[in-house]
Amino acid sequence: MTEQKILIVSGTHGNELNPVWAVEKFRHLINASSQSKHLEFILGNPKALEKGLRYIDVDLNRSFNVLKTSSNQNFYEVNRSEYLINEYGFQGPKSCSIVIDLHTTTSCMGTSIVMYGRRERDFCLAAILQAKFGLPIYLHEKDINQTGFLVEAWPCGLVIEIGPVAQNHYDAEISERFLIILNFLGDLMNNLENNRINLPSEISLFVHQKSIDYPRNETYDINALIHPSRINNDWKMIEEGDPLFLSIDNKTISYKEKEKIYPLFIGEAAYREKNIAMSFTKKEILKFDQEWISALLSFGI
Amino acid sequence: MTEQKILIVSGTHGNELNPVWAVEKFRHLINASSQSKHLEFILGNPKALEKGLRYIDVDLNRSFNVLKTSSNQNFYEVNRSEYLINEYGFQGPKSCSIVIDLHTTTSCMGTSIVMYGRRERDFCLAAILQAKFGLPIYLHEKDINQTGFLVEAWPCGLVIEIGPVAQNHYDAEISERFLIILNFLGDLMNNLENNRINLPSEISLFVHQKSIDYPRNETYDINALIHPSRINNDWKMIEEGDPLFLSIDNKTISYKEKEKIYPLFIGEAAYREKNIAMSFTKKEILKFDQEWISALLSFGI
Repeated sequence: MTEQKILIVSGTHGNELNPVWAVEKFRHLINASSQSKHLEFILGNPKALEKGLRYIDVDLNRSFNVLKTSSNQNFYEVNRSEYLINEYGFQGPKSCSIVIDLHTTTSCMGTSIVMYGRRERDFCLAAILQAKFGLPIYLHEKDINQTGFLVEAWPCGLVIEIGPVAQNHYDAEISERFLIILNFLGDLMNNLENNRINLPSEISLFVHQKSIDYPRNETYDINALIHPSRINNDWKMIEEGDPLFLSIDNKTISYKEKEKIYPLFIGEAAYREKNIAMSFTKKEILKFDQEWISALLSFGI
Repeated sequence: MTEQKILIVSGTHGNELNPVWAVEKFRHLINASSQSKHLEFILGNPKALEKGLRYIDVDLNRSFNVLKTSSNQNFYEVNRSEYLINEYGFQGPKSCSIVIDLHTTTSCMGTSIVMYGRRERDFCLAAILQAKFGLPIYLHEKDINQTGFLVEAWPCGLVIEIGPVAQNHYDAEISERFLIILNFLGDLMNNLENNRINLPSEISLFVHQKSIDYPRNETYDINALIHPSRINNDWKMIEEGDPLFLSIDNKTISYKEKEKIYPLFIGEAAYREKNIAMSFTKKEILKFDQEWISALLSFGI
């Protein structure tokens, strides 16, 4: 079995500082002999980071494997995504088989995992992290409006998403939470190969159903905010009649569907431009499949 | 006595959305007959607001009454500050004698007042607001590195500062706090003229002493964050030995001076570029001076 490497990406969004700090601190404190040989580190979007912006031209985390056209070929992020794949992708000179992309959110998501689609290796890694740290998992799938995520460009990859934290805001407590994950990942490949990881019996998921926009007026301006009783209540079930928004003329706009759902990324600042006020999810529990661990341990070319 | 008007400015920083929302909502709900005749409303930095940035060229709230030079004469904010003074200043066609500039901060400042210097009218207005709502007051003075504030360009003016809230993040609860203040201001001139305001006997201030930067390494990069036990503890007294920062190699950096002080704007995201990690203040209590109310009621030209 070849030596597997995990690529740790921080600063994929240039205004999310705590992952960048956590990685710097981790590299200061790292146990060079054992942990470092299994990890590679790269800044996702150094140019945006320098300017304190989410991105320069387009969202890097929607720019992987997009079709290059005359209109986007000069976009910094489109070229940066190519560079990252060429250099650190599975076939690259600094080949990594797993990628962990570190993000923060202004929503009250706590420490959480985001998965993109149903890949066996992702299930395995997410289940291990969930069993170890009790993290909730948002499984993003079947959303034609949101594609081109970084982690999808590697054979295995997850997003670690921690919030709430303001953009461009350093918070030592948030950084420490990333450090805990990094420490675990530094030993993971070694522990996996030596059977020192307890595999769970199941994985619990919050599966994406759809995203909803803010209510808007006739000129397409937002005319209602997330309701005070809904904001900061990510992962909490709502049912018919529960408040979603509070309009500019002080009217409550409620959830009207029969199905009970769990809203996530409630009021995330960066998603307004994507017309997303929150995403609706349903809970799903899967039995841990032994094929998942076989898949994670065998990255055949 | 001429009709006094209060200018309400929101969006002076284009990534502080809740004041803008609160003003829009207030204008929807306003009691047109009595409140509106005493208020004018203006967006401070509409161009930055559109882009979700604090500013376009320079910080508008450091650009009032700055010397116009060949290097800054084309800056959007330098020209915008002139426009605001010319149009809404005391001598302008839409003359306002008082200005209230609405801001949010990523720091845990709660709902607070910021005063700039020791002007009688400001003392009067701040004391009234403090007595009504119990707001703490940060008196910013004697800071040669921070000048050109908006409110200083009017005969009377205060900043209302509410946090913590992320940049570019709508929070209905934060907006509602601005609405409470706006409602009070809408009736203020009327109530003052009719002696319906109870004047307090004193005003309690947190007076600016100095600001301190983050610890930095030899290449001037930040190498310590606000200590986890210090962040979100604005307005709380510290003394010698209390932790200030936690360095990248996990060492605690403590406050070393003898004097007990109160740190404010701890870790404010927008102040990093100004090399401010937090500001130190000392408490001061002044007796309410009857001249203050005379000054507030008489804006002679």
